[in-house]
Formats: sequence, C-alpha cells, structure tokens
Amino acid sequence: MSYLDINLENIACNYNLLKEKVAPYALCASVVKANAYGIGAKQAMKTLQKAGCKDFFVAGMDEALDLYKISKDNLFMLHGVESYEEAELTYHHNIIPVLNDHHQIDVYNDFGKKLNKKLPAILHFDTGMGRLGIDREDVQKIINHDFINYQYIMSHLACADEPQHPHNIQQLQMLQKLQKFFPNSKVSFANSSGIFLGKDYHFDMVRPGCALYGINPTPGQPNQMKQVVTANAKILQRRVLQKDQHVGYGSTHIAKKGSKILVAEYGYADGYPRALSNLGKCYAQGYFLDIIGRVSMDLMIINASAIPDQIFQSIKHVEIFGNNIKIDDLAAQAKIITYEILTGIGKRTLKNYM
Amino acid sequence: MSYLDINLENIACNYNLLKEKVAPYALCASVVKANAYGIGAKQAMKTLQKAGCKDFFVAGMDEALDLYKISKDNLFMLHGVESYEEAELTYHHNIIPVLNDHHQIDVYNDFGKKLNKKLPAILHFDTGMGRLGIDREDVQKIINHDFINYQYIMSHLACADEPQHPHNIQQLQMLQKLQKFFPNSKVSFANSSGIFLGKDYHFDMVRPGCALYGINPTPGQPNQMKQVVTANAKILQRRVLQKDQHVGYGSTHIAKKGSKILVAEYGYADGYPRALSNLGKCYAQGYFLDIIGRVSMDLMIINASAIPDQIFQSIKHVEIFGNNIKIDDLAAQAKIITYEILTGIGKRTLKNYM
Repeated sequence: MSYLDINLENIACNYNLLKEKVAPYALCASVVKANAYGIGAKQAMKTLQKAGCKDFFVAGMDEALDLYKISKDNLFMLHGVESYEEAELTYHHNIIPVLNDHHQIDVYNDFGKKLNKKLPAILHFDTGMGRLGIDREDVQKIINHDFINYQYIMSHLACADEPQHPHNIQQLQMLQKLQKFFPNSKVSFANSSGIFLGKDYHFDMVRPGCALYGINPTPGQPNQMKQVVTANAKILQRRVLQKDQHVGYGSTHIAKKGSKILVAEYGYADGYPRALSNLGKCYAQGYFLDIIGRVSMDLMIINASAIPDQIFQSIKHVEIFGNNIKIDDLAAQAKIITYEILTGIGKRTLKNYM
Repeated sequence: MSYLDINLENIACNYNLLKEKVAPYALCASVVKANAYGIGAKQAMKTLQKAGCKDFFVAGMDEALDLYKISKDNLFMLHGVESYEEAELTYHHNIIPVLNDHHQIDVYNDFGKKLNKKLPAILHFDTGMGRLGIDREDVQKIINHDFINYQYIMSHLACADEPQHPHNIQQLQMLQKLQKFFPNSKVSFANSSGIFLGKDYHFDMVRPGCALYGINPTPGQPNQMKQVVTANAKILQRRVLQKDQHVGYGSTHIAKKGSKILVAEYGYADGYPRALSNLGKCYAQGYFLDIIGRVSMDLMIINASAIPDQIFQSIKHVEIFGNNIKIDDLAAQAKIITYEILTGIGKRTLKNYM
C-alpha cells in the first residue's frame, strides 16, 4: 500500500540543531499541535522527550486531552480556557493554559479562587500579530490576579520568516516593555523562524514547530533542517498504451501510443494537491516522471515512458515527495505552503515510523 | 469547540433522490471511499443501508478491512488484488475485488484454483478514462477464467459532469460492445453525474458517490442534492481594536481602530483553504463576515464590525460553510473542487452526526 516514512531520528536531529542555535539560558520547547503538523503528535512527543525536551505546546483542548498522558513535564495549551469546565479539565489533567484575553483570565482566576490555589498559566500579549492575546494597552488591568501564577508571559511573531521586516524589532521592543510589569515571570517569544533572528529574541523559552518537522525556518536561504517525511505511492497498474489515449477526468491529456503509464494509489484525498494535475512530478528508480491528466481522489496517472521496460514492470512504488521531490518545491509548485502539505496528509495513508 | 454537523438524514434523502432517477431495473450502489468523502464511512454506510442500499464501493484494502464488519451484502474494492495475500484477505472478509488488469486477474484466478472455487469479482474495462482497467482491445484474452465469476463488468466515465462531451457516448458505445462478450455478467457504469446522462447509462447498477454527500452532480445547473455538512468554528476571542493594527502572519492586512475582531478556532489544518486568506467569508447571526489576514494553521481572524455590540460579545460560533456559505462557492473561490474541501476536513474537528 501507499505509505509515509517518518524519520523520527531526524526530528531529534532538528531539535538538537535548534537547541544549538538557542541562547544557553533559554529552554527549547516543542510545538506538537495539529498532530505535530500532520506527522503524529504522540510519536513526535516521545522522540522529542528522549532528545531532552520537557515543554510542549498544543492548540486546543482536544489535542491536550489526547496527549496529557504522555506529558511528563509541561503541556501548554495555546487556545486557553473559556469556561469553568475547561479550567477544571486543565487542572485535572495537568495542562497549563495560555490565557489570551480578559475573559479567559477571569474564568481561570475564579477557578483558582474556588480551589484556593494559585494555578499555573502563560499570559499571552499581542505585540503585533493581531490574532490571539491581550492588548498591550491593557497590561495594567491584569497584573493583579491572586489565583494565577504567570509562569511565563509570551507573544508571537508575525513576520519572523522575513528577518528584515521592521515588525520584528517593533514586536521585540514591545515585549521588552511588557516584561517589566512581570518581574517574576519568564518570557517566551520565538517560533522556529524567530530562533534565527538572534539571541535577543530567545528570552527564557523558544517554541519551534515547523523546523522540527523539516520545514525551512529561513525561507530564501538553504534549509538547514533534516527532512522528516517521505511519501511513497503504491503502483496499482502498469500499462503500455496500445493507442493514443485520453487520460483522467475531463480528458485533459492525451498520452501517445506506446507510452508507459503507471497508476498510483495516491490522490487528493491523501493530501496531494489536485492543482498539480498535468503539472506535478514524482520519482522512481532515478527518473523524474510527469503526472498526467487530473489527479483524482484516490489515484494519479504517471507517464513513465522514460523508464526502461524491465524496470518499468517491476516498479512497486513511486516517491511523491522525499529525498528527490522536495516537499518545499512541491508546495511552491502548487502555490501553497509546506505546512499545508504536511497537515493535509490523509489519514488513510499508513505511517511507517523509523 | 469547532464542530461539523453531519446530516445523515440528508444522505438518505440524496440516496432516495438518486434512486428515483435511476432506471427501475438498476440497483443503486453507494461509493464510501475516502471515509465517505471525508464525512465518515461507517456512519454513511449504516445510513445508506437503512435507506435500502446493499452494494458499497471502497478504494483500497485498508478501507475494505475497516468496513467489512458493517457490510451485510456486497462490499466491492475498486483497487483490486495484486498478491495471493490480498486475494486471501478479500476471501476471508467477504470483500469482492474489482479486477483492473491481467496481473490482478491471474492472481485472483490462481487463488480460486487453489480453493477450487469460483470467486466473485467485477471486471473493469477502460473505455476512455485512461486510468485503471483492462484495455478493450484485450477483451478476448480474458473471457476464460475458470475460477472467477464476473458478477459485473464495469467501466468509469471521464466526462460525465459535462453532458455534451462527446466522450460520454463514445464510452457508452464501447461498453455496449464489451457487454456482448459477457452474457452472464451484469454491467455497471454510471457515477453520480452519469446517472443524469439518462437511462442508457444506468445498466444494472449505478455507483454514485459525490451526490450522496451533497456535491452537485450537474455542474452548471442548480444542485438538486441536499447539503450534508455544516462546519462551525468556535470563537476563541472577541476584540475591539484600540488602534489601527496589522493582523496575522506577514502583516498582510490592517484593521482599523474600533474594528470588532473575532478569532476562530479553524485553520488550514482543519481543511480550510489558506488560499482564502484576505478573501473568504464566514457567517454569523445574519451577517457575512470577511476573513482578514492570513489563515493560519489553527486559527482565522474575522472582521465582525458589521455586527451590533451586544450580539458581537455573545457570538460562540461562526459558520465556515453550510446553509449560508455554500461549500461549492467556497471551493470555487479557492480555485479547488468541493471534493477537496470534503476530503480535506481535518480529523481533529468534532463530527456531530444528526
């Protein structure tokens, strides 16, 4: 069948590479939200724990509840708590919420009051991302909450993948100002790309995600990260055309008599961009092969005429992306981002962890 | 949390509507591959069984093994068997393979020979789709296989959604010729759109998929099918901006001071096309609202300034697609097809079956 090879060792390598870049006084957390960017959150988390990581970030409650049993140290939940019930869930499952607005703070503080305990949290300020987080103008309103221990204050960079973007330094300066209001809290700021902006951005804890899974955190420069995922599609059929013939839905391509055609069990339901119909390439046995006709839900059609006969008949799989078809190139060709390829990987595709 | 409402009753309605269109002598099967186009294969299958469907199609072995326990009658596997082991699996799990080439036929016949039994199968001819299936020129080579009972011969339409396309009638005529070689086999041809090409295309069994799940089988004409899926995103945060402010990654949008902003827990990892950054709309409380800034992995940012204050503060969810944001329009705006939206629905989103 079609399968993904997921190289966990390379996730550990990427973690170590990032750690080397990070200021020695800063912790290196790992973001494992969205099923570790499609790769498998449990497997990624165990691998990263072995590599020394103790701090993990997920998005919402569903992900936190899915992973709390594996967490040994800190499991942070980015989307926060909005009700007493959610606050209770975090407390009983050892999940530390990131608090993003006054309502979340009030809910969490009230819950702490009922328990008469100071509860751990991260306080999130919006320094320019304009998404989640407290307005920096409101900082005075939130420094007194008796039942919350703000372990960290955090913020999130909007343009870290563009090192020259003026917003980076503006966000940094804003966070430095906010920091002074919380002398007992640590600070977390940088995502993967933020790590490469320099040590000023590292504070007490960085939070890489994409780079762990092989996505280039420094676009426009060579990718320093090791590739983690290879996708291999099973060949269902090998045909030598007996005449000129249309292939695929909408009859958008004519393959010539004598063409060697492979039909692979991989389609857009497996996460392959249909936009690469008649455009994309895959790879087998030293050859880059054209995808012809429209990519369908479960299948794609490949022109393998370049491959010699005896090899052609024995091809069991083609590489969809991996060592030869770079996932970043595939995404760029489909006019999407690599993150979308990873998080879009279909769930029926077998994941082979190594 | 964010959730999908999946209206199973409407799947049953769609099945019944299709059945009414189908010639009275023809069976109406259901295609439930790719997790029933992302909707949930088990739930769809049980619903369709209650509506009277006895014949189901899946793509590969993984899907067949996931569903064989639910199957009471015929579970057909489109991708066929390529080894003795796969033939054995189909036999022990009551799965009927579609045989797509000479190799698959030989494998399956050899397995039948070992059992000394005539095994059920569908024989697939390529009449112009140029994807899976036997070349029609090879029909003479395959009529004698002692250990296979070809319950059906089948073929697949390439251009059924374009009723005027000349390939439809060409494919039909080809299949009618092939039919004569198999006087003891029934015939299956039409997919969803094929049903609307008229009764000549119905033969003994039609195989709708997309139309069951609400996708328009007659593009360019009004959609007769009932909508099955509604996606609702949880609102994590409501903000009134205290100044003009950039929002989202890359700072691609400036929202004005006083803007009412919603941050919703729905991003491209949930299947929302990132291509609709600064373009898409969602819906709440009678208002169509702009998505502003880039869609991120887990979140999107929405300008809800049109909504009166007291309603704004109480908004818990927004409609991503459903009754108001038509899924077909959403797909068209993102320059993809509705099938990709459905099969791309993220697995962390809660499915609420009703």
